[in-house]
Amino acid sequence: MKLATLRNNRPDGQLAVVSGDLSRYVSAGRVAPTLQAALDDWPRAAPALADLARQLDAGEIAGQAFNAADAHAPLPRAYQWIDGSAYMSHLERVRSLKGSKDEELQSIRPLLYQGGSDSLSAATAPIIIPSDDLALDFEAEVGVIIGPVPMGATREQAAAAIRLVTVLNDVSLRRLVADDLQNGFGFFHAKPSTSFAPVVITPDSLGAAWHDNRLHLPIRIEVNGVLYGQPNAGIGMHFDFADLIVEAARTRNLAAGTIIGGGTVSNPHDQTLPIKADGIGFACIAEARTAEKAKYGRARTPFLKPGDRVRIGALDAGGKSLFGDIDQAVALLAN
Amino acid sequence: MKLATLRNNRPDGQLAVVSGDLSRYVSAGRVAPTLQAALDDWPRAAPALADLARQLDAGEIAGQAFNAADAHAPLPRAYQWIDGSAYMSHLERVRSLKGSKDEELQSIRPLLYQGGSDSLSAATAPIIIPSDDLALDFEAEVGVIIGPVPMGATREQAAAAIRLVTVLNDVSLRRLVADDLQNGFGFFHAKPSTSFAPVVITPDSLGAAWHDNRLHLPIRIEVNGVLYGQPNAGIGMHFDFADLIVEAARTRNLAAGTIIGGGTVSNPHDQTLPIKADGIGFACIAEARTAEKAKYGRARTPFLKPGDRVRIGALDAGGKSLFGDIDQAVALLAN
Repeated sequence: MKLATLRNNRPDGQLAVVSGDLSRYVSAGRVAPTLQAALDDWPRAAPALADLARQLDAGEIAGQAFNAADAHAPLPRAYQWIDGSAYMSHLERVRSLKGSKDEELQSIRPLLYQGGSDSLSAATAPIIIPSDDLALDFEAEVGVIIGPVPMGATREQAAAAIRLVTVLNDVSLRRLVADDLQNGFGFFHAKPSTSFAPVVITPDSLGAAWHDNRLHLPIRIEVNGVLYGQPNAGIGMHFDFADLIVEAARTRNLAAGTIIGGGTVSNPHDQTLPIKADGIGFACIAEARTAEKAKYGRARTPFLKPGDRVRIGALDAGGKSLFGDIDQAVALLAN
Repeated sequence: MKLATLRNNRPDGQLAVVSGDLSRYVSAGRVAPTLQAALDDWPRAAPALADLARQLDAGEIAGQAFNAADAHAPLPRAYQWIDGSAYMSHLERVRSLKGSKDEELQSIRPLLYQGGSDSLSAATAPIIIPSDDLALDFEAEVGVIIGPVPMGATREQAAAAIRLVTVLNDVSLRRLVADDLQNGFGFFHAKPSTSFAPVVITPDSLGAAWHDNRLHLPIRIEVNGVLYGQPNAGIGMHFDFADLIVEAARTRNLAAGTIIGGGTVSNPHDQTLPIKADGIGFACIAEARTAEKAKYGRARTPFLKPGDRVRIGALDAGGKSLFGDIDQAVALLAN
């Protein structure tokens, strides 16, 4: 099934079940008022939501027209957002930027950071930046939303806790990354509000696109309407989502509604921008700039500036955006 | 007024108003079901809660006996927990442990890290560790819970957003700190669930103990019933809570219910353990060990082990524990 959180006058929005083709929705209010409430009571809520989805797709419920612009982030505020770094080619390309120190360890244990989860952004919300000199970048990622996981969980427990799959933009201010990492306390100012696709999907509804705890679909990225990248999220994902969850639960319990990101999707290749229709490209600007520096001696692709637009979506076998698109314009904070 | 969250069968517990002397409480259910709900609607909820507090303290409401062991963390799960490092003598003493790189910058801008907020611990909950070789430490801190703060907030906006003051234990696994900082992504495994005093207090109810956006009270720490430290939280706090909030909001909005910690309370002195009744001591073990190494050539104070007990409380002028005590035993995770 596909779920979305619609904006209303409450901080957590309104849970809705969305049709498979994203054309219609029905309120899930009689099952659970919010997605967090459904996750808190998943064994009861999930079958009832699945039943609504079946009725909606069968036309037994007419529903209303679904407009992605009405969707909030699935969890407009979450209790936890943990981002991993599961694609080795991303780490290799941005290593010099990240100031990371132990290359060996990174392929044995996934890197994780604790992200801010109090204000997550809707798919069509603008990316608001406090100034235009912060080297604004996007990072197109796949994420999962999980049920409760106990400290010291096994891979089996971790995999079984995956409730929903999503696509997200881990907005990054590259000019602040060095400061954040230099002080030793990790990402903070460099990682403002993360944005989410309009719809989340249960693993069982993803069919062949979900196996081995990975999403096997291309993530298509456009910047200002021009194809920027289309790496496949199932390729080069060295750690799967069960690995990331196990790592996150090493010293603590994880609560229902925890969001885990897989890190910037990245496939190994030696292309630079612009790519053609059959190219792979990149899921962030930092990687493109590193590839350009290696090939041309200098970076060519600029970071995002106010007025720019970034679009991110996972494409199904028919080329349709499965979770709906993240489609954000960049804007400067009003003083 | 003083508020607490009482355990019930819901993840967020039940909001209660507690009498000034911590002897009695009354449910705040008719104002707001949970502390987060009250924070979401503070301009309406705060006066109603203050009215309940007045009636309870005047004996107009009998209330029920308040037992600190029934209290959950004020926000058993929060949308954000940001810990700062505002006491320079703490940074100076533990610098070698933290692997921090820029001493100059730390006194200009406060260090902040994003903590896990999905599973916060009650004052009397055991500290559960996955193994006994992780160098378990406590960090006694003062924290504030805030209302919404916009990106780029001024000091005035930040100070005005402080809703509640609390005392907390930023539980730390010292053996994992080096790993966390080595990988460049900041604290993660080294910072499991943070624990909170049973009661939170509005700044206006703290009287003379709250001014200059700081809590001016000694924080008394006992380990296994022996006095360990009693540094004053108002002394040596280089950055005040308004500074910490301004820094946290540099590139993002902060949602209502964000918890901001001031970092390990630490007063400059050259004592070692054990201290006498008039000594200052330490609010974490790492600082004591550093002082011992400097004086004796080796650390003497052991880290916490299963069965140990740590007690932390802020004392008022009469020597009474103002927020109630954090009183936690250490236990090993059951397999």
